[in-house]
Amino acid sequence: MQPEPKRFKDLEEAIDGVVESYDEGKAIDNLESAALPNKRAVIEAFAHLEHVLFMGFYSKRSLNRDNLRHTVAEHMYAAHQLLVTQIERALHYDRWMGRTQQVKPAGSGEEVVLGLLSQIPDLRRKLDLDVRAAYEGDPAARNIEDIVFSYPSIQAITAYRVAHELCRAGVPMIPRIITEHAHSATGIDISPGARIGESFFIDHGTGVVIGETAVLGNGVKLYQNVTLGALSVPKRDEDDGRQRHPTLEDGVTIYSGATILGGETVIGAGSVVGGNVWLVRSVPPGSKVFGRPKGGD
Amino acid sequence: MQPEPKRFKDLEEAIDGVVESYDEGKAIDNLESAALPNKRAVIEAFAHLEHVLFMGFYSKRSLNRDNLRHTVAEHMYAAHQLLVTQIERALHYDRWMGRTQQVKPAGSGEEVVLGLLSQIPDLRRKLDLDVRAAYEGDPAARNIEDIVFSYPSIQAITAYRVAHELCRAGVPMIPRIITEHAHSATGIDISPGARIGESFFIDHGTGVVIGETAVLGNGVKLYQNVTLGALSVPKRDEDDGRQRHPTLEDGVTIYSGATILGGETVIGAGSVVGGNVWLVRSVPPGSKVFGRPKGGD
Amino acid sequence: MQPEPKRFKDLEEAIDGVVESYDEGKAIDNLESAALPNKRAVIEAFAHLEHVLFMGFYSKRSLNRDNLRHTVAEHMYAAHQLLVTQIERALHYDRWMGRTQQVKPAGSGEEVVLGLLSQIPDLRRKLDLDVRAAYEGDPAARNIEDIVFSYPSIQAITAYRVAHELCRAGVPMIPRIITEHAHSATGIDISPGARIGESFFIDHGTGVVIGETAVLGNGVKLYQNVTLGALSVPKRDEDDGRQRHPTLEDGVTIYSGATILGGETVIGAGSVVGGNVWLVRSVPPGSKVFGRPKGGD
Amino acid sequence: MQPEPKRFKDLEEAIDGVVESYDEGKAIDNLESAALPNKRAVIEAFAHLEHVLFMGFYSKRSLNRDNLRHTVAEHMYAAHQLLVTQIERALHYDRWMGRTQQVKPAGSGEEVVLGLLSQIPDLRRKLDLDVRAAYEGDPAARNIEDIVFSYPSIQAITAYRVAHELCRAGVPMIPRIITEHAHSATGIDISPGARIGESFFIDHGTGVVIGETAVLGNGVKLYQNVTLGALSVPKRDEDDGRQRHPTLEDGVTIYSGATILGGETVIGAGSVVGGNVWLVRSVPPGSKVFGRPKGGD
Amino acid sequence: MQPEPKRFKDLEEAIDGVVESYDEGKAIDNLESAALPNKRAVIEAFAHLEHVLFMGFYSKRSLNRDNLRHTVAEHMYAAHQLLVTQIERALHYDRWMGRTQQVKPAGSGEEVVLGLLSQIPDLRRKLDLDVRAAYEGDPAARNIEDIVFSYPSIQAITAYRVAHELCRAGVPMIPRIITEHAHSATGIDISPGARIGESFFIDHGTGVVIGETAVLGNGVKLYQNVTLGALSVPKRDEDDGRQRHPTLEDGVTIYSGATILGGETVIGAGSVVGGNVWLVRSVPPGSKVFGRPKGGD
Amino acid sequence: MQPEPKRFKDLEEAIDGVVESYDEGKAIDNLESAALPNKRAVIEAFAHLEHVLFMGFYSKRSLNRDNLRHTVAEHMYAAHQLLVTQIERALHYDRWMGRTQQVKPAGSGEEVVLGLLSQIPDLRRKLDLDVRAAYEGDPAARNIEDIVFSYPSIQAITAYRVAHELCRAGVPMIPRIITEHAHSATGIDISPGARIGESFFIDHGTGVVIGETAVLGNGVKLYQNVTLGALSVPKRDEDDGRQRHPTLEDGVTIYSGATILGGETVIGAGSVVGGNVWLVRSVPPGSKVFGRPKGGD
Repeated sequence: MQPEPKRFKDLEEAIDGVVESYDEGKAIDNLESAALPNKRAVIEAFAHLEHVLFMGFYSKRSLNRDNLRHTVAEHMYAAHQLLVTQIERALHYDRWMGRTQQVKPAGSGEEVVLGLLSQIPDLRRKLDLDVRAAYEGDPAARNIEDIVFSYPSIQAITAYRVAHELCRAGVPMIPRIITEHAHSATGIDISPGARIGESFFIDHGTGVVIGETAVLGNGVKLYQNVTLGALSVPKRDEDDGRQRHPTLEDGVTIYSGATILGGETVIGAGSVVGGNVWLVRSVPPGSKVFGRPKGGD
Repeated sequence: MQPEPKRFKDLEEAIDGVVESYDEGKAIDNLESAALPNKRAVIEAFAHLEHVLFMGFYSKRSLNRDNLRHTVAEHMYAAHQLLVTQIERALHYDRWMGRTQQVKPAGSGEEVVLGLLSQIPDLRRKLDLDVRAAYEGDPAARNIEDIVFSYPSIQAITAYRVAHELCRAGVPMIPRIITEHAHSATGIDISPGARIGESFFIDHGTGVVIGETAVLGNGVKLYQNVTLGALSVPKRDEDDGRQRHPTLEDGVTIYSGATILGGETVIGAGSVVGGNVWLVRSVPPGSKVFGRPKGGD
Repeated sequence: MQPEPKRFKDLEEAIDGVVESYDEGKAIDNLESAALPNKRAVIEAFAHLEHVLFMGFYSKRSLNRDNLRHTVAEHMYAAHQLLVTQIERALHYDRWMGRTQQVKPAGSGEEVVLGLLSQIPDLRRKLDLDVRAAYEGDPAARNIEDIVFSYPSIQAITAYRVAHELCRAGVPMIPRIITEHAHSATGIDISPGARIGESFFIDHGTGVVIGETAVLGNGVKLYQNVTLGALSVPKRDEDDGRQRHPTLEDGVTIYSGATILGGETVIGAGSVVGGNVWLVRSVPPGSKVFGRPKGGD
Repeated sequence: MQPEPKRFKDLEEAIDGVVESYDEGKAIDNLESAALPNKRAVIEAFAHLEHVLFMGFYSKRSLNRDNLRHTVAEHMYAAHQLLVTQIERALHYDRWMGRTQQVKPAGSGEEVVLGLLSQIPDLRRKLDLDVRAAYEGDPAARNIEDIVFSYPSIQAITAYRVAHELCRAGVPMIPRIITEHAHSATGIDISPGARIGESFFIDHGTGVVIGETAVLGNGVKLYQNVTLGALSVPKRDEDDGRQRHPTLEDGVTIYSGATILGGETVIGAGSVVGGNVWLVRSVPPGSKVFGRPKGGD
Repeated sequence: MQPEPKRFKDLEEAIDGVVESYDEGKAIDNLESAALPNKRAVIEAFAHLEHVLFMGFYSKRSLNRDNLRHTVAEHMYAAHQLLVTQIERALHYDRWMGRTQQVKPAGSGEEVVLGLLSQIPDLRRKLDLDVRAAYEGDPAARNIEDIVFSYPSIQAITAYRVAHELCRAGVPMIPRIITEHAHSATGIDISPGARIGESFFIDHGTGVVIGETAVLGNGVKLYQNVTLGALSVPKRDEDDGRQRHPTLEDGVTIYSGATILGGETVIGAGSVVGGNVWLVRSVPPGSKVFGRPKGGD
Repeated sequence: MQPEPKRFKDLEEAIDGVVESYDEGKAIDNLESAALPNKRAVIEAFAHLEHVLFMGFYSKRSLNRDNLRHTVAEHMYAAHQLLVTQIERALHYDRWMGRTQQVKPAGSGEEVVLGLLSQIPDLRRKLDLDVRAAYEGDPAARNIEDIVFSYPSIQAITAYRVAHELCRAGVPMIPRIITEHAHSATGIDISPGARIGESFFIDHGTGVVIGETAVLGNGVKLYQNVTLGALSVPKRDEDDGRQRHPTLEDGVTIYSGATILGGETVIGAGSVVGGNVWLVRSVPPGSKVFGRPKGGD
């Protein structure tokens, strides 16, 4: 039995109130924002790319050399169409908002998407190294399959690597939608702007934050709750493109809960930073940085 | 090819075992709990409210002044019907359980929902301020659109602000379903009972916990992994409504990993609490509270 | 209007590139991995088990003694079919990969599933105790319903308890898919291999990590961001089954952000470990371990 | 790109026009008719009965003695719930309309449905005979499977036999919805009120009409476009329950396009009526009734 | 287990064959026909109109004066958007094909749809009369509800009346899609071009054919298998708009299987034409035209 | 509110009754018939073929030379997989039933399907001629699009032409499922065994029956309600493959309601048979066969 809506008059008045609240200048979005990208479509496109990146793990179909191309094509065509549409909407919106300095011309969405799709073999190579890094880095990992199926690390890094390509191509909004989607699923928050080398692994992952201008070398390994953040908050209009987040050289390991801040902070190659350490200055290669244990002394 | 279930007899026995486990007194839920609210319906109702709160960002339709009212009405009617039904179920269940002291009379669900819906313009105004706070507070924020689409902060605060209204109206179960849904998506755990002022921003957000009796002024800013918790656990039957969680006055900033505990703890206006700080006492307005850096000394 | 794909030739070339990247040895998965379990099917099976475990909370139907059996049977049959298929695929894959030492024979999936299903009454009894522990442990818990509907703790523990049974039965891949699904929803990362006693409660939960060989007694209570981890990373080929993660005896409470590491670390019964404490050695029963407050001194 | 609705004002006016047309007395249905049965739900219930009647032909699941009961129960429960609800709505509506003379009391829907469901074994027996009659009667029938899968005859007779039981139980509206659904799919229009014996077959079937008070014995066979109709149209208020449509005794065959009219018309046992014959009077058993060929003389 | 496609090479060759068959001039459709209307969208739009025409019979929602407008608006907006898009595609296609003489200008789709929607109150009035004609004309009709729910007559006439309006407005393709959809469901084939008066009823209906230029007065009643057809087939290029199908004046009744042919054939008011009669010339008002009975003489 | 099922005991008893009715020998289908083809899957496969046969009319995507192949491949792959599975099931069932004389060996389903798919270009050529025949034969046809979209003739002939190929390849059950599906939608009943030439057209179509051994030349045109049937019903075991249905030579036209019976009946080339004529003997080429008009003499 449905609720008997005895006071539809009140409901209609509430609706009027909402409509009025959309009068210009009053609130968050004016109606023109309807031309914005569709979040769900972006995420659907990303899901097609995940299929193509890890075909054997996602395919419901029995695959072999002969029907592989057809299956790849299905997802590539779908991703292509969704992404071109959404990227064009994002570019169109930025132009409409008068954000003209960096915005690409209409129609460049297709070029961007074809660029991304042509990089998939290289992305597959990189993700293969990330999976191997997880296998090497986690003694509890019994096999490659667990990692691809279940490790938040791989889910978050896959989203980052795709989003980063779009970010580099100058696409607004879409990269962030992709990484925040992975953030929601994994608790790992990687800015699409960060630059991250190969063979990257994050164990457990919840609470990890990697800022927009962070730079990570190859073979870096992080644990849960690690923050690679900014020291101070520069005013936006003074933003001169300076690096605000730290640099981690090759082979650095950061244990859980550590916080490393500042654009001039460089963690030298092969260093190890202990759990819960708070670090705002550079350390030379090969350093071991541990805080004092807090319990029982 | 489906599995050949050779031992359906065993399966039938397993079913019998489960059925027996529902004999009264044995386990978690007796069957009457079937009259409980439906979690999925509550979340669907909340999704309709999100549409209405950020129309331009969710609408698949091209919007303008003329068809706006129709689109608003679609979501308002849907939210109305779903919420009235679910709230009535929650109230009915509480009455059936003999929780009579605070429970509203049958049929009051409609009044509650109309109350909530009539507050939407004000919620939109508040969320507008929260979005602006995010824009001001995050130097990496390039535009308003990224924030509404992607920032966990906005998703969690929207859920909190809606749930808080239902909580204030005395609705059981439903507010918590809404905030825990956002908790699952964002890692941000805000109790619907907390009182939070305007222009609120949480950067990154994963691991933030804001307790039931916490009080936050305007312009508060939190980073990931901040806990605003209780110092000790009072016995329920001694619960006299005292504030168990801290108060943050206007303009307070708390950096990542800080823990602030206790109902008598007041962080004075404009104070800044550093990362990983553990704080169980009040500090005057304008304080800067930092722990000693733990690494490299 | 769909995007006019002017450069399908480029798209077709990109597809060719992806197909080539699947040539053997080049990347993560070869095509035979198509015989792997289907992640979505595993999660669907788990959802059926959740229905059976908390019937009154999930059923859309009005339940009573008479139709209960039919409703239970619906979910048991569905879970049975899905799980047998997926477990057989996982076992088949492991055999195909030559991981012969521990792998169960073909057809044993049915036995495993019937074993799991016959344990459901006992799982229901344990989860009942977990729900009561949450009710006792959280002063903000107003009723049992909030806990079952909304507490991440219950969602994560339910997944763990089911996955643990499959893990004990020697099933590969599937247990991890189940616990990582809950990890994604709750931010709580419990290894299916951990051994956890009765009446377990995790408050808030985001960021909790419980390692593969951790052992927890009855009545343990954890807060958010607690890590029960390994001290050092043994080489896989030296893995002799030793315990790498700590033991928490009955009645231990660990506050938020604490880190306890090492397989020889034993936290004695009834001990309390304070927030953010870092602990790598055993403490006797009844200990209170707190770090020094970091702010304001 | 969606159509730009430039003239929403006109659309809103059109909506106002429609709303006004629902003012009482103006048109077909007043709003109270919203309490009518839901046609789609009735047809869904009938589909569940078709499953139960021809289990092996509809089941997607591999069936055997052991899981048969579960599969039967699934469809029986679903049909039960749908039918009870819809029949109660139909009875409620009739009472509300003041059609009191024949209407069953509230709550009798359940009794009716249980009555129908308990007759399913007998319906299965009768449909078995109808299938055999089709096999015997159609020399092109190669096997039983073609008949059950594909013959419009079986689809129409199944609907009739179910609807007839509901009709006999005094249920309004629902029987007609079921037979007209089959009419739409097969072109065979059998009134739920007709009385039809066993081993009934209709070849091809399109255009067959069997009136409300027609009486057919066992072993009757019809071809396409046969009408068993009324001679004249009595005034409704003079309707004294007299038979208005013909009687066909056992073993009668009627070829395509023949028309037989009148409640006093009896076609004697074993008679054959030729194609396109127009018959308004009785014929004795064993008659052969043919018109003159029209072509070529 | 899916079929092992051993011969994908053959399948790929078959695909090549099909692609080649689309080379211009070879077969039915060239690829530009992709800009044609979408049949499914047209039928969906018509379903929305059926809702609005018989609100109380289709609504799943409990309706009353207060929420009626919202429910009407939902279907009107949906029908509007679907129809404008599809009509524009049909008009665009006709212009593209160079069928310039009758084709409306681009953008006139909206005008046509608003015209149709503003006529809905009048269509409701006419359909009300058609329903009453069915009630008067069929002694087996027990109530209005059976007629609206189940009579093929009403389904076919509703489709005709809507399609006729679009036909009169010069819309190509769409009207025929609507009437053929009803033809498929009812076996009643009414050309959208026919002109049919008020209070029209078709009993049983299967096999009825009403040609493009037929003219029917008020109160006409047809039985199943009646044909109102053309005598001879004029060459298309000689088509001078002459009436090719018969005229039935007010109150004419035609019994089942009768065939009436020719544009100059006029059946005078109040005439009755008997079953299976073949008629190619006019008869005066009040005529009774019967063939000789074919059986038993 | 769901119906309160007060008498579940009765329902459970009814279920027991149904289960018992499946005891062997009692009724229509024994449980092994669960291995039968799935009707819905067959119809879905046919829908994919319709897409490929009339690409431009069904595609939702904007098509051009470049993406055509991908779109064709999508449907070909889908049809291939569905058909191979269903045909194998049909063949398996026939072998299991011991119908060994004509049954193809296991695994031949793939060969059959590839054969069918490789004939699609030729089927497209034939359907093109059928569409043209409709355009030439119906003066009301304004354009090709109406015919492909809406004419029942094309829908029925497409199903026949596909089913006939499968029939010729010796596939059981599936061809009939396809033609009866079209019969249900169009009222046109063409046996998959009939042999029909090119440029075939059926106007209106409802009630047309074309028997299993009928032979039709090129350019044949039928109207609604035409029967091409058998004179007498031979006993099945005497069935020696003789032709039981008539032959229509090239260019024959048969008007509505005519009935032509008998395997030795040959309608000579170019003959015209008038409406309602009943014909059981051959006529020479060029004959005009009309009955006497029945009305008004």
